Amino acid sequence: MSALPSRALTLSGERLTATYLLTGDAATAREKAEDLCLEQTVEFPADLLPPGDIPDQVVGRLLDLQPAGAGAHRARIDFAVETTGGELTQLLNVLFGNISLKPGVRLVGLDLPLGLLGRFRGPRLGAAGWRERLGVPRRPLLCTAVKPMGLPAADLADLVYQFALGGIDLIKDDHGLADQPFAPFRERVARCAEAVARANRETGEACIYLPNLTGPADRLHDNARFAKDAGAGGLLFSPGLGGLDVMRALADDDGLDLPIMSHPAFQGSLVVEPTAGIAHGVIFGQLARLAGADATIFPNWGGRFSFTREECVEIIAGCITTMGEIKPILPAPGGGMTLSRVPEMLETYGQEVIFLIGGGLHRAGPDLVAGCRYFRRLVESMGG
Amino acid sequence: MSALPSRALTLSGERLTATYLLTGDAATAREKAEDLCLEQTVEFPADLLPPGDIPDQVVGRLLDLQPAGAGAHRARIDFAVETTGGELTQLLNVLFGNISLKPGVRLVGLDLPLGLLGRFRGPRLGAAGWRERLGVPRRPLLCTAVKPMGLPAADLADLVYQFALGGIDLIKDDHGLADQPFAPFRERVARCAEAVARANRETGEACIYLPNLTGPADRLHDNARFAKDAGAGGLLFSPGLGGLDVMRALADDDGLDLPIMSHPAFQGSLVVEPTAGIAHGVIFGQLARLAGADATIFPNWGGRFSFTREECVEIIAGCITTMGEIKPILPAPGGGMTLSRVPEMLETYGQEVIFLIGGGLHRAGPDLVAGCRYFRRLVESMGG
Repeated sequence: MSALPSRALTLSGERLTATYLLTGDAATAREKAEDLCLEQTVEFPADLLPPGDIPDQVVGRLLDLQPAGAGAHRARIDFAVETTGGELTQLLNVLFGNISLKPGVRLVGLDLPLGLLGRFRGPRLGAAGWRERLGVPRRPLLCTAVKPMGLPAADLADLVYQFALGGIDLIKDDHGLADQPFAPFRERVARCAEAVARANRETGEACIYLPNLTGPADRLHDNARFAKDAGAGGLLFSPGLGGLDVMRALADDDGLDLPIMSHPAFQGSLVVEPTAGIAHGVIFGQLARLAGADATIFPNWGGRFSFTREECVEIIAGCITTMGEIKPILPAPGGGMTLSRVPEMLETYGQEVIFLIGGGLHRAGPDLVAGCRYFRRLVESMGG
Repeated sequence: MSALPSRALTLSGERLTATYLLTGDAATAREKAEDLCLEQTVEFPADLLPPGDIPDQVVGRLLDLQPAGAGAHRARIDFAVETTGGELTQLLNVLFGNISLKPGVRLVGLDLPLGLLGRFRGPRLGAAGWRERLGVPRRPLLCTAVKPMGLPAADLADLVYQFALGGIDLIKDDHGLADQPFAPFRERVARCAEAVARANRETGEACIYLPNLTGPADRLHDNARFAKDAGAGGLLFSPGLGGLDVMRALADDDGLDLPIMSHPAFQGSLVVEPTAGIAHGVIFGQLARLAGADATIFPNWGGRFSFTREECVEIIAGCITTMGEIKPILPAPGGGMTLSRVPEMLETYGQEVIFLIGGGLHRAGPDLVAGCRYFRRLVESMGG
């Protein structure tokens, strides 16, 4: 027995609910669920806890446990909002910190109460805000990536100019463009932002350039400010590389006032194994939104990656499901997308989507401006 | 065909080498390896690249491909150091950014050239530095965690005092202690640091308190400074929650001058599936070191988690393998460790280890000071 003191706690009674898919028969799953309730909160042997509010309120509570297909069960567990301290990093920790280290546990659902959601501002623009800034009320938005790595900044800027002239709405850096000597960050951002501005003057449109913000955490804010001052209209950020809460801080920066596209680099291990990690809709939808993404990039089904159509549909749901005042955001499927996929993608995504075509635009031929215009007309002609 | 220009690049010729375990027969593995060379660099169709240095130097190169057990192959691939821009986030991206999204690819080896290693300072203290600060030249270091969540700061500080009086070397916050109303960050840190100082005055030892640094990215630096000023002698940080490069920035902060223990929360999905993610020794050893961790916490085999002894041995190797001027660090196995495991752990870890016992210390009985003294004598008597 331990000699820990029993203290009465003052709690709001608000609780967040997480749903986990647990591998195992009913007895194994129950054991896993009960372990999870401790592991994600007090991380302490149940029999050594002082009686009272810690075991009764602070430890997670198993609400129900149901069979979920062969050899798996679904557990709904709730946690006092106070366990999160109202902070994103600790919310992530409560949801999936230590338990990520145990096999056969997947976080598949998330329901946050209003009191906790109110601690987060979420995306700056959200789906409607993009449309307003771009002046595109209805059709799918068109996005492409500046690449390949290795081209000098002037060549990349020339590509940007052609994309913008061709009617692309959002031109992002490839997420692998960092501060390489081929095209250093500041030179690249200045040239590409200038190229978009020049094209916008010619077209009368409001195309946005989004540099990839990466690099040292202690220089990130200065780099973001540089991008803003240079004329970038948004940022690309990979929370798997840089941190979800770092993205949240960028989104919350009113001095910056820039929308963010979130890129899934280095987050794949969270989703690729169906019995572990976090479900697609939770990590690329709900949590990306909570962390301030205005759009969430992910691999479309049937491209170079292995996501299924169902997993993409889950991400759509995560982008729009009600989360208090947190705005809905736009899914941005990419990863080997081609123009021939547009009709099929319109069927699944509808108009509330960003079509991200990278290499596929170059495939259409050497005249990039013409290729972009064709892409734009194709989307406009199909109900946009 | 595309119309991208061919440009000559000036490259150092230094290349980093990564080894991947690829699921599949020889043909499949070769296809995966060749795809990886593109995906992790130019992310562009090979046939559309301009001829010259981009395909020849910037795209990754498959060095060799060997069978590695049933249904898997091992591919060694090298990349020009320039692709990383000398930055940790982009290094992570080159090693495992997009490819994390494809199943059946595991990063199992990492060999960084001196030119790239020289861009990183690594751990501030490393293994030898801990011993110097603590005045413990040889035996394993003893560590415990302050918990459970829910106790008020005064009670937690009282635990800290007892641990320090009992001869524990390193007392860390539980990684789930954030800024909860039960024990707000600043109050907790001030009280716990004071408790350690008081105990050190009585014992004449140099026990170190390491608060858990979590919470908003934009307040992290202020919180770290607060902890330092309050008397914390180190920091606990979870790079899976807060970002590996954020940890690197904390480690590099000379004004702070605090050693860091890295906690694996939220990083489990990287390791739990043996055919995906990143090998234990790479993520918890080499990459933790590169990102400034002075000690790396992970679940010991045979505790509450599922790591095997072999995986723990890989982590030991990652802690000490030669990496230029980057110091060796201490492994800190925990996660359900008990006093009865000490002999077996000494056999595997030797003296260069931090024994992390949390709940197990409370299990020994209500007299925590006596429990800690017993733990200390046990370790000292066994060859320390």
